[in-house]
Parts: sequence; C-alpha cells; structure tokens
Amino acid sequence: MSEMLDVSGVAARLARADNVLILCHKNPDGDTLGSAGALYWALRGQGKTAAIFCSDPMDERYAYMELELFYEQFKPEFIVAVDIAGAQLFGDKAAQWADKVNLCIDHHGSNTGYAEMMLLDESAAACAELMYDILTEMGADIDRRMAECMYTGVSTDTGCFKFANTTARTHRVAARLIDLGIDVQKLNELLFENKSKQRIVIEQLALSTLEYHFGGCCALICLTRDQIEKVGADEADLEGITSLARSIEGVLVGITMRQQPSGSYKVSFRTKVGLDATAMAKALGGGGHRQAAGCEIFGGLDNAKTAVLAETGKALEAGGLCRRRKPSEEA
Amino acid sequence: MSEMLDVSGVAARLARADNVLILCHKNPDGDTLGSAGALYWALRGQGKTAAIFCSDPMDERYAYMELELFYEQFKPEFIVAVDIAGAQLFGDKAAQWADKVNLCIDHHGSNTGYAEMMLLDESAAACAELMYDILTEMGADIDRRMAECMYTGVSTDTGCFKFANTTARTHRVAARLIDLGIDVQKLNELLFENKSKQRIVIEQLALSTLEYHFGGCCALICLTRDQIEKVGADEADLEGITSLARSIEGVLVGITMRQQPSGSYKVSFRTKVGLDATAMAKALGGGGHRQAAGCEIFGGLDNAKTAVLAETGKALEAGGLCRRRKPSEEA
Repeated sequence: MSEMLDVSGVAARLARADNVLILCHKNPDGDTLGSAGALYWALRGQGKTAAIFCSDPMDERYAYMELELFYEQFKPEFIVAVDIAGAQLFGDKAAQWADKVNLCIDHHGSNTGYAEMMLLDESAAACAELMYDILTEMGADIDRRMAECMYTGVSTDTGCFKFANTTARTHRVAARLIDLGIDVQKLNELLFENKSKQRIVIEQLALSTLEYHFGGCCALICLTRDQIEKVGADEADLEGITSLARSIEGVLVGITMRQQPSGSYKVSFRTKVGLDATAMAKALGGGGHRQAAGCEIFGGLDNAKTAVLAETGKALEAGGLCRRRKPSEEA
Repeated sequence: MSEMLDVSGVAARLARADNVLILCHKNPDGDTLGSAGALYWALRGQGKTAAIFCSDPMDERYAYMELELFYEQFKPEFIVAVDIAGAQLFGDKAAQWADKVNLCIDHHGSNTGYAEMMLLDESAAACAELMYDILTEMGADIDRRMAECMYTGVSTDTGCFKFANTTARTHRVAARLIDLGIDVQKLNELLFENKSKQRIVIEQLALSTLEYHFGGCCALICLTRDQIEKVGADEADLEGITSLARSIEGVLVGITMRQQPSGSYKVSFRTKVGLDATAMAKALGGGGHRQAAGCEIFGGLDNAKTAVLAETGKALEAGGLCRRRKPSEEA
C-alpha cells in the first residue's frame, strides 16, 4: 500500500522533483485533464520539465488547456498519476508506467493504493479541488490558464455544481479560480453546451420511444439494436442519454434499455433522491450507486421489459412513493 | 426616483418595520420567490408579522420554501418588492400596490425606480445574493429553510452557476448557504431535473424539425402553428426550447422560429460567446442581449426563413467565424 501524504507532504515532494511525467486515466474527462494541466503548468512555471501522458486522445473541447503531451525525448524521473483509482484505468498505452508511479493524487475512495506515495481525499468533489490546495502550498503563481484547468475539473466532476458531491469547499475553490479571471460562461459553454450532432439524433430517437408507467412515476426508453445501428450511435452518446428519462417532472425512476450486439439488453436505472436505484438493479443481477445503477438482461424485449417494470413497481411500492397501479397506466 | 440605500440602510429600515408585505413579480421564478421566502422567514424569526404576495400562482416545485401567502386579515404597514424591475411586472392582482412600495431590493440595471427607497446592485447575479448580505446585516438567525430559499434564487438565476452573471461572490454565497446544511443534489433535481411531460413532447417535435446551415455553424428549429397546436404547447414550454439548437457542438447560432396565432413568426437567436445575437435581431427589427435576441417576421415561412438565414450568414461572415458557404450546405 501507498505511503499516505497530506497536502504539504505532496508539495514538499514535488519541490524536489524534476522531469515529471503526469499520467491521466484512459477515456480522459475534464477532471483528470484539468488536474494534470494545472500541475503541468505549475511545474513549468517553476522552471521544471514536465509532460502529460494519456492512453486515449483528448477531446478537442479541452484545447484551451494547451497541454503539452508526452514526447519521445522526454525521460521521466518522477511519475505522478492524477484522478486514477486503479491500474486498470491507465489504458494500454500507459500500462508500462502503472507499477512505477511515485505519487498518486486522487479523490476516489476505491483507490487501490498502487502508487509509492498517495494523497487521497474522498471528501473532494474533484481531483482538481485537491490540486488547488497543492498548487497553493507549492507557492505556484496560479495564472488564468491554470485556473481554467482546475475550474474544468471541478465543474465537470460536479455537473456544474449540481451533484451530491458538491460541497461548500467546492464553491470556495470555484470562487478563488474565478478571482483569477476565468470566463465562466465561455468555459461552461464549451463543457456543457456541446452535444454532438449524433447525440441529438439519438436523443430524438430515444424520446420517440419514451413510455410512462406507474402513473408517470417511471419513464422508460428502449432502443433496439436495429434502431441503434440505423443512427450509428456510439457508446458515449448512448451513455449520455441515460439521465434523460429521470429529468422529467414527476418521474422518480428513469430507465433506459439498449440492446447489445449479442441481443441482450443493458438496463440503466436512474432515480431521484429518495429512491434507491441499486435495489432494482441488484434484484436483476446488477449493481451500482444509489441514484445510478444497472444490469444486463438476456431474453427477448417483452421479457426484459416485464422484469424491469416488476422490480421498479416493487421499489416504488416499498418506498411508498407512488400509488400502486398497473405498470402501463399512463400519467 | 427612489432614495438609494446600501445593505446596512436596508437592514436598519427593516428593523423598524412590522406587518411587512413582500411582493414578487408576475410569472414568479426561483429568484423572486427565494428572495421573498428568505426575507419572510427572517422577519418571522424576529417576531414580526409578514406575508408574501404574487399575482400568479407559484409552481409546486417551490413548495419546500413553505411560503405563507397573503391572507385577507393581513394589514400591510411596510411594502417590500423583491426582484421587480418595474411596475409592469407586478401583474394585475398586485397592481394596487405598485405605487405604494416602500422598499425595492433588486439587481436589474433596468429598474425604473418606482419605490420610495431602493437597494440596487447590478453586479449581483441574483436578488437572493443581495438578500444574503441583508439578512446577515439584520442579524437574522439563518436556518436551513432560509438557506434553501436563497440557494434557489442564486442557482436558478445563474443556470446553476453556468451563466455569465456568475461571479466569485455568487460562489462564496453558495458556499455559506451549503454550510447551513442544504441538500444541493435534491434542490437542483427539483429545480433543473424537472421538465414537464409536455415539454418533452415539444423537444421531440423541435428536434424532428432541426436543420443545419452554414456547414453546421447554425442550427434552425421551426414550428408551425399546426404543429404547436397539435401537441398543445404553452408559451413557457416553447420559450424553454429556444436554447436547444445552440447546445449542439459546433453550432455558433441556434435559431428557433415559432408561428404565432396571427401567422407571423417569432424568431429567437441564441449565440455562443463571441457572436452577437443582437446584430441579427436588430437587422430584422428586433433586439435583445448579446447571447439572446429576437424579432418577429411577417409573411410566409419561406420568406421568413430566407430573411433569417441571410442575416445569420452576414453575422457569421462579419465575425470571420464560419467559412462562407451556401446556407443549406449540411454539416
């Protein structure tokens, strides 16, 4: 297991480091990139050499971070992993470094302790929230670009300050970053007002299949393989619509079923606060979190839908949240 | 014109007041109700009598504020208007008090100065942001319900900390309100994950009419009167979809055209930062703000669309934002 460091311990260790390789997790999101970017620019600002590596390409919406990616001539002397909870998240191209990480900075309670040293703070909404404290402790001269990087991490990991992980500290960090001159509207436009054209096609398709059950307490979207292939939807876009059904007034549980190439149905349960999504998913052999859980059901569409609605009905009844009605009764 | 007060002046005046009537603007939103609610509960907590009045009914999603509305036996001695920029915003049922307002608390630069005394701070993202300072100055014992009211105002007026009006101060106020124990996720679910079922029907309809122009830099939604009447869309739901087209990747201007009962087309321009929406709207006899403007066009659909796209093309070209292409060229 890792030696646990606090913020000043991390700052002291980084002060002695040079030629720092910063690793992001695969399928990089705003937090891993933003945390890496802020640290990269802080180290560069202190006259050090640094580079960032990520197994997968970075979405072009993050171009404003101006991240310098790893180059052949670079010889890492000190390796830092940011926002990476376990070795399986390094991705193929970064796997060579997974057991050579000197320092891990993370906020996932599930972190496996793969690094030599670690700063782990589960109470942080984003890794970038921790990075702000580290950079401050390092005496870094935090400029607007570094502030943009950290704001990106905080904003994307909290759904723009909307999710349950958002704390008073999250807002205080955001306030200090805004003091440094970032353009909140422009950044959030890039981060949130940026649905792919393909995603829009899928949203329209999903809405065309929307059904209400249990007097409107449940909304169900169901996409067959034919429909998915016809519009050419990719996994990221399909994942993105799983919150759609829950966002409707009066809906306590939003369900999205999507047929897999094998014919089975991948089922996503998304619940409002007060209803536990894991109850439904576990009964069907799956699992997850309180507000977001899932399972896979084999067999035909009718069977899958019947099973999903039966568990949903039980959960609604157990919670006393919805009058008992037939599943198909419309809102 | 009103006598201008600062925060301590407002607190001093409220300290001498009792039987306070608090007025909200018509079609009440989260900020007018949240500001009123916080002040109401603060006055009540100091042993005073107070009531809230609004010309229009309050959406049931705000029920957690537990606002006590005006009742017949109540005799107002001191009238406070919150978040009301001018007399035309009182609504019919509150018009009787519009020229009797003792104190107005507002953040709209356009405030007409109709009240005897006024606290006006345009730099505040929400009226509720000002209310936090006032309640603190009043020595109010701010409890969770009052914090929920003010958070509602701040969160709704900034699109959950996303819009250009969001400042470091906004985040600092949010941090202090969260310190008071509010449930961020639950509140934001109520406020933002709460589209009406009707709104979902209209979104689907809108997406089915979506067209891209100028190589994907412009997305256009157009709803005819027949389509609007068929789904029974109301104005609020139609207003809600005007940001839809802009939210797409690569789209710099999102246009929504909706036919009015008279046959004319109401046109909404929504632009990303860097492109001025007023340029297009003004050329067609309308007006508005930099990122949101509109106009009305008489004549048939083809003429309206041609005129709208011609102005859009000019604005894109003037901004050097999009290669010159024929309007109908697909992304």
